[in-house]
Amino acid sequence: MSYFDAASSLPLHPVARQALLAAFEDGWADPARLHREGRRARMLLDAARETAAEAIGCRPDELTFTSSGTRALHSGIAGALAGRARAGRHLLVSAVEHSAVLHAAEAHRDAGGTSAEIGVDRGGRVSADAVGEALRAAPGRTALVCVQSANHEVGTVQPVAEIAGVCRSAGVPLLVDAAQSLGWEAPPEGWSLLAASAHKWGGPGGVGLLAVRKGVRFAPRPPVDERESGRAAGFENIPAVVAAAASLRAFRQDAAREAVRLRALVERIRDRVPRLVRDVEVAGDPVHRLPHIVTFSCLYVDGEALLQGLDEAGFSVSSGSSCTSSTLTPSHVLRAMGVLSEGNVRVSLPPGTPGEEVERFLGLLPGAVNAVRGRLAPRAGAAGSAGGAGSGEEEVTVDALGTLCPLPVIELAKAIGRVPVGGVVTVLADDGAARLDIPAWCAMRGQEYLGEPERNTYRVRRLA
Amino acid sequence: MSYFDAASSLPLHPVARQALLAAFEDGWADPARLHREGRRARMLLDAARETAAEAIGCRPDELTFTSSGTRALHSGIAGALAGRARAGRHLLVSAVEHSAVLHAAEAHRDAGGTSAEIGVDRGGRVSADAVGEALRAAPGRTALVCVQSANHEVGTVQPVAEIAGVCRSAGVPLLVDAAQSLGWEAPPEGWSLLAASAHKWGGPGGVGLLAVRKGVRFAPRPPVDERESGRAAGFENIPAVVAAAASLRAFRQDAAREAVRLRALVERIRDRVPRLVRDVEVAGDPVHRLPHIVTFSCLYVDGEALLQGLDEAGFSVSSGSSCTSSTLTPSHVLRAMGVLSEGNVRVSLPPGTPGEEVERFLGLLPGAVNAVRGRLAPRAGAAGSAGGAGSGEEEVTVDALGTLCPLPVIELAKAIGRVPVGGVVTVLADDGAARLDIPAWCAMRGQEYLGEPERNTYRVRRLA
Repeated sequence: MSYFDAASSLPLHPVARQALLAAFEDGWADPARLHREGRRARMLLDAARETAAEAIGCRPDELTFTSSGTRALHSGIAGALAGRARAGRHLLVSAVEHSAVLHAAEAHRDAGGTSAEIGVDRGGRVSADAVGEALRAAPGRTALVCVQSANHEVGTVQPVAEIAGVCRSAGVPLLVDAAQSLGWEAPPEGWSLLAASAHKWGGPGGVGLLAVRKGVRFAPRPPVDERESGRAAGFENIPAVVAAAASLRAFRQDAAREAVRLRALVERIRDRVPRLVRDVEVAGDPVHRLPHIVTFSCLYVDGEALLQGLDEAGFSVSSGSSCTSSTLTPSHVLRAMGVLSEGNVRVSLPPGTPGEEVERFLGLLPGAVNAVRGRLAPRAGAAGSAGGAGSGEEEVTVDALGTLCPLPVIELAKAIGRVPVGGVVTVLADDGAARLDIPAWCAMRGQEYLGEPERNTYRVRRLA
Repeated sequence: MSYFDAASSLPLHPVARQALLAAFEDGWADPARLHREGRRARMLLDAARETAAEAIGCRPDELTFTSSGTRALHSGIAGALAGRARAGRHLLVSAVEHSAVLHAAEAHRDAGGTSAEIGVDRGGRVSADAVGEALRAAPGRTALVCVQSANHEVGTVQPVAEIAGVCRSAGVPLLVDAAQSLGWEAPPEGWSLLAASAHKWGGPGGVGLLAVRKGVRFAPRPPVDERESGRAAGFENIPAVVAAAASLRAFRQDAAREAVRLRALVERIRDRVPRLVRDVEVAGDPVHRLPHIVTFSCLYVDGEALLQGLDEAGFSVSSGSSCTSSTLTPSHVLRAMGVLSEGNVRVSLPPGTPGEEVERFLGLLPGAVNAVRGRLAPRAGAAGSAGGAGSGEEEVTVDALGTLCPLPVIELAKAIGRVPVGGVVTVLADDGAARLDIPAWCAMRGQEYLGEPERNTYRVRRLA
């Protein structure tokens, strides 16, 4: 098996395993206790904090261990918002943040706060200008800005240093979700709060990091206890924390070299896939990107079927398509970027991936895509069309109601040939993915998207 | 070293260690993913849930894994209160619950709810009658009752089945914190929600259990995600969960036999300590108690100094005294019971503790206590007394302001001999522990506690 889903989770790093086993001997006791076992546990916890703080570039007393990256984000956002409640209750988040950030924003709105999403370009990049504009749109009311260091689905690296400058000028703290990048490098200067997750760099599950710069107003949300400076309640998971810190250091030692190697492999995928497979869109910023993530989407492809095909062929990848059973709606990241979501595949290479595995993947991808496309064609035919048929008709309506991604787009592609250049195809589709994928299809095929005049009714003018 | 602090945390059970290592091979991937690694992780998670559910006596779909016992309590209480918000916003908790429950109650009050504590008897036991009375005191408004299965400081087992009956009659759900007892046995029937913590039975840190019976109204607090039925956000820590479930089963296999053995050892400590050491109070219900926990307090002893002495002699115990640096106030459990907190020692025996270790402990305890008492005597003398001296004076005032536990009580003990029977000693003391320990001293010594007519002013009549 080739595991190409590093951005989800990595197996335990050998150094983490070793650290964990050692810490299970010495770090299982309650570090709040005064006895020998408690003091040993406390020493291990302190040492892990020193190590992780150094890798982040912060002081040990600025760093708290949480029970997950999600928890670090939830606690960090809630604590920063509460700490700044007098300044305002407006929260700004980029539209491509991890869902944990979007969930925290939703919880903030439920509790009477407001939030807004900062849009991204087609490559998934947030600009410092857009952040400045969003800050000016809610003058003096913004309590916090959240921007990730790099995107988890398409790998786009955000201009954190510039955004930090804009936030600093406005006197608003910046929370940086560094989950995807912290293994690779320390985040740029300028963050006020930083969150990360250890299983992204080969640490064990169950460890998140939350750093809060001295001087940043922060009010932990109750219930709190005396653990982790009152910022993460519950018994410290010291063996896991020790392993997380050790593997962060170990991952970093190889990171620079591995980044060069993986970047070349990803470059090869970015370059080759559109040549090997028809009707593919590669997503994400081509320049500002993580070394190990590449994402592409394939027209007329059911993402789940493609994942299964690849899995059977020995490749584990993930997908932001809505047609996979693990995600009922298309990825909010792809939606914010305005790119195709159907037949979406994310390849994220673990450190050490051999070049031959990537070659093997490129070799069998066309066959896997074609197999899915071949299976879908008859189903697409059966969906039928409601409008009048016959070449030359100016207006054709296609009824794809009740069909799921990618069938509405397949119907559109078939119908467009039935109208002359200048003619219009109307697609009726109630699968939400159509709202993203029909405009994306138009952009890819050079057709004009006329909009959705009524809900679930999409109009497209043939230009080519 | 003899580790006698099992109630805080246990070292990793060999079965947990084995399970953990195996699960690190197969359970590190994201169980929400469709690929092979994700499916394997999902299978391990499902199997762990089956195992743990069986040990609890619930359905697998009633059980959620959280990141700690504390988190299980916080989430369980908040979710149950939110789910029942229409019924009322009153929360009842026993006065001897774990601090995580008291913190959750405090957070509930901060958010506009109300709560009340149900008192306990001198043995630390909550009666079903007291629960019924508390329910009648807030008719129709109580959203939730929280009672632990057994106390973590004194080992007292609560009458959960009877309390559950009272709650059922009132139509109010009951949350049972089973952290201390779940390794030993399944909780009695009748709970609506149940919480526990894996490191209490040799599982790894970072795993809590929250079970919510079908039919119990429960509204998880945002932010939530799709993990663990929306009840525990963040990446599942599958290796730790697998190890937690495996060690729960393994612990239980030996529990019945070990309980008999440890109960005899604890009985021996309960019996011998008051004979070996002067002025000792053994706390906790003598009959309804966990097999492995025994707590006693020693008059005129600085708890931290005693812990250090025992630690140097090779025994790791914990203390609910306020004079230990790990706890700035006396244990709320001892306070609720109205028993002495100074010189408090909790002995909690891990499974497998050899009888000889207990004998050795009993052998050196008198010396350790006397050493501390000897060291304190000159300091006690230096504290001085302000009131008129001389035997036979009817009223004596002792100024112990600025001194810490156990000095105010030592001053009182010295002064009581200076008044005749019927005379009154007034102690001025601003250490909060005096509020608990002066009345407790009176009860132990057969003197009459007259109360605290002004803050930090305690009056005692000599009867004996």
